[in-house]
Amino acid sequence: NDSKNSLNISEKKVDNILNEVNKDQKLYMNDPVSPGSIFFLPDGTKIFNKLVEFMKLQQEYKFGFKEVITPLIYKKSLWEQSGHWINYKDDMFRVESQDKSKEEYGLKPMNCPGHCMIFQHADRSYSELPMRLSDYSPLHRNEASGALSGLTRVRKFHQDDGHIFCTPEQVGEEIAKCIKLIDLCYKRVFTLNRNSGPSYTLEVSTRPEKYIGELKTWDHAEDMLKNALESLKKDYSINEGDGAFYGPKIDIKVTDHKNKSHQVATIQLDFQLPERFKLRYKDKDNTYKRPIMIHRAVFGSLERFIAMLVETNEGSWPFWLNPRQAMIIPVNTKSAEQVKMAKEVHLKLKGEDIGSKNDFSIPVPNNGYHFNVDIDLRSEPIGRRIKDAINKKYSYIITVGDNEVKSNIYSIRNRQTFEIEALSYEKIFEQFKTLQTNYS
Amino acid sequence: NDSKNSLNISEKKVDNILNEVNKDQKLYMNDPVSPGSIFFLPDGTKIFNKLVEFMKLQQEYKFGFKEVITPLIYKKSLWEQSGHWINYKDDMFRVESQDKSKEEYGLKPMNCPGHCMIFQHADRSYSELPMRLSDYSPLHRNEASGALSGLTRVRKFHQDDGHIFCTPEQVGEEIAKCIKLIDLCYKRVFTLNRNSGPSYTLEVSTRPEKYIGELKTWDHAEDMLKNALESLKKDYSINEGDGAFYGPKIDIKVTDHKNKSHQVATIQLDFQLPERFKLRYKDKDNTYKRPIMIHRAVFGSLERFIAMLVETNEGSWPFWLNPRQAMIIPVNTKSAEQVKMAKEVHLKLKGEDIGSKNDFSIPVPNNGYHFNVDIDLRSEPIGRRIKDAINKKYSYIITVGDNEVKSNIYSIRNRQTFEIEALSYEKIFEQFKTLQTNYS
Ligand SMILES: [Zn+2]
Ligand SMILES: [Zn+2]
Repeated sequence: NDSKNSLNISEKKVDNILNEVNKDQKLYMNDPVSPGSIFFLPDGTKIFNKLVEFMKLQQEYKFGFKEVITPLIYKKSLWEQSGHWINYKDDMFRVESQDKSKEEYGLKPMNCPGHCMIFQHADRSYSELPMRLSDYSPLHRNEASGALSGLTRVRKFHQDDGHIFCTPEQVGEEIAKCIKLIDLCYKRVFTLNRNSGPSYTLEVSTRPEKYIGELKTWDHAEDMLKNALESLKKDYSINEGDGAFYGPKIDIKVTDHKNKSHQVATIQLDFQLPERFKLRYKDKDNTYKRPIMIHRAVFGSLERFIAMLVETNEGSWPFWLNPRQAMIIPVNTKSAEQVKMAKEVHLKLKGEDIGSKNDFSIPVPNNGYHFNVDIDLRSEPIGRRIKDAINKKYSYIITVGDNEVKSNIYSIRNRQTFEIEALSYEKIFEQFKTLQTNYS
Repeated sequence: NDSKNSLNISEKKVDNILNEVNKDQKLYMNDPVSPGSIFFLPDGTKIFNKLVEFMKLQQEYKFGFKEVITPLIYKKSLWEQSGHWINYKDDMFRVESQDKSKEEYGLKPMNCPGHCMIFQHADRSYSELPMRLSDYSPLHRNEASGALSGLTRVRKFHQDDGHIFCTPEQVGEEIAKCIKLIDLCYKRVFTLNRNSGPSYTLEVSTRPEKYIGELKTWDHAEDMLKNALESLKKDYSINEGDGAFYGPKIDIKVTDHKNKSHQVATIQLDFQLPERFKLRYKDKDNTYKRPIMIHRAVFGSLERFIAMLVETNEGSWPFWLNPRQAMIIPVNTKSAEQVKMAKEVHLKLKGEDIGSKNDFSIPVPNNGYHFNVDIDLRSEPIGRRIKDAINKKYSYIITVGDNEVKSNIYSIRNRQTFEIEALSYEKIFEQFKTLQTNYS
């Protein structure tokens, strides 16, 4: 109970920082017409999409995942088969058709049963394993309305969800790979802890009171998780009775530079759903065997992950995630030449072919670099416009005056270093390209 | 009735081609646990994502749209306000919480009310108009189960949806821009009609029997649509009584090279929802005015659009959309050098930094070019493996034999021209890059 209280207090703090940043940056909004469902506004959507894009690249091109898009509503019978209808009913939304058929569905709180259907749909061979499916579907869980707040306590959320179907022999290697992706994220790209100390901690959660399946299967699964961590020489603690109803899990928590701990990734081992969905693959010896299922997410809830990023960066986004990467300002908006040069860099950094300017019959090329740049053509004094751009936390401010027009070189100011450089368009583009490419 | 019959017949044909291509390419599946909801399998998901990426680039960087992510369930009261609960009830799914509160929601069939909520949430000024919001949310409409089939008659689907809030004076210009985006798509990127003849036809659909609002508002809206098309010098036909219940619309139909007509884009003019949601903006004269709302989609349903592409290309995808862009085949899988050279080009075309090979601590860079390439290391004869790759409709087949190892030049075969060229990795990459960049 004590820990629950302190959780509530620190979550309130998050909400305060979130609220303040959100007031400035307009990332999202809520409305009583859909309590607990976030409306991501344009800049919040950009951050959301960048995070998903990052994870898709890692999972698809390095970790062997294949993305699928799956239904959101499934007949009640499926949730009975999966065990959700008994063990999870109050947290699920019921869906009903309003025609004569009155068909009854559940709105999915998890992607697992849908992925089981995909595995089940074809005759599978050992050579297809491990089969790794990823999914970014919206999920709905009916949290009590009193608990709803900000981005952390919601009813609709998205996960960087994934399920691995594999043989018992492959479990260790697959968990090791999950940990490698977690390392990649929390030791390299999202380094929240600017102090020393570990990037994250591991907790093994064991069989809860409400569970499905047999005791000895649970013991075996718990052992497999612990063994995998031990052979990776990873420290972990035990969280008795906090597993999912279908299997034990590893929770990954990261600690930020304020020493606050955030639940992010999770790895769950599951012998139950493959049993309930009668999943099978044909082994080398031509007999059918049951695969094991691993549930895992690295960001966890995208909504909660974004809240955590805001809390730690306080709205100062790194370039690659910033919805406001550069503001372009002509010093004198009455100078046709300055405005022209400003508009040109604006167009080029957005990734449009300069030759196609205003030609709506030429598509925006899919060339990988489309930066979030804005242009301030208001007739306000230059100092005022620069100050506004600084307050809005643009990563770079690019100004164009008479000198810039003469030399065809831009003045560019870096938010973090306060440095002002004189750079050609090509140099600016190269710099932005490198920042995006390396997630900086 | 005649036209309805012929529609059914031609939809059956689509399904036959679709079924055959799907049997080979495994793009999607259906299951009775969720009738009318598509499971997109990995290769289908790739095509889906590429189409969305294309549209996002055009809308975001050329046509001034801003993407948002909006809730899927809204309280019944919202649908009463919007008029959907009366006019659209049987086609909507009802959602209910299963806790004590028994809250009642509707699962959204359209994004419009959600976008009205966003407009409503802040004090809007004329300077913010036109405000253009785009959204790729999943939508649910309860089609009768008898009518469900393939990708064309579904209950869950996605639109490249967008809503423009503007002043009466801006309507003409905004409709003209919608038509320009339609031209960009159907005259330039998705040219379905390889014969001569127009790329698409326009139909204006007028007030239906079930409608909301006043007669004279409807007449005015219908006139605005017709005037916009006339000032663009576009021919159109009239479809009496086929408008949406909240406003008249323009339907865009493309004709493929088999002379079959497909409903794709739509542009709808709406005075009713702004009224019902009491939307307003502060004009130059400091008085509040009602904006006009334009609903538009260019692909229309992504699911139906993909079905149409399959029907016209019969599974031979252009390079940029192909989930199978290149197959890499070492001639002799026992030659370590051939296998090494094959694996290298595989890794590089996937967009991984070659230096980071097998280094899981280095992220896949976000450098814009990640091709769908596979490698065939089976010990089957080379002729057999090439034949398999041809049957699977890979755009390119890259082979590596002893000559290729010696010269460090790859043999690359083009699916369409049957030509075999000897190219360096750099040349191959440049060629792929150009194809992706230009949507070829
Ligand atoms: Zn799961
Ligand atoms: Zn709409």
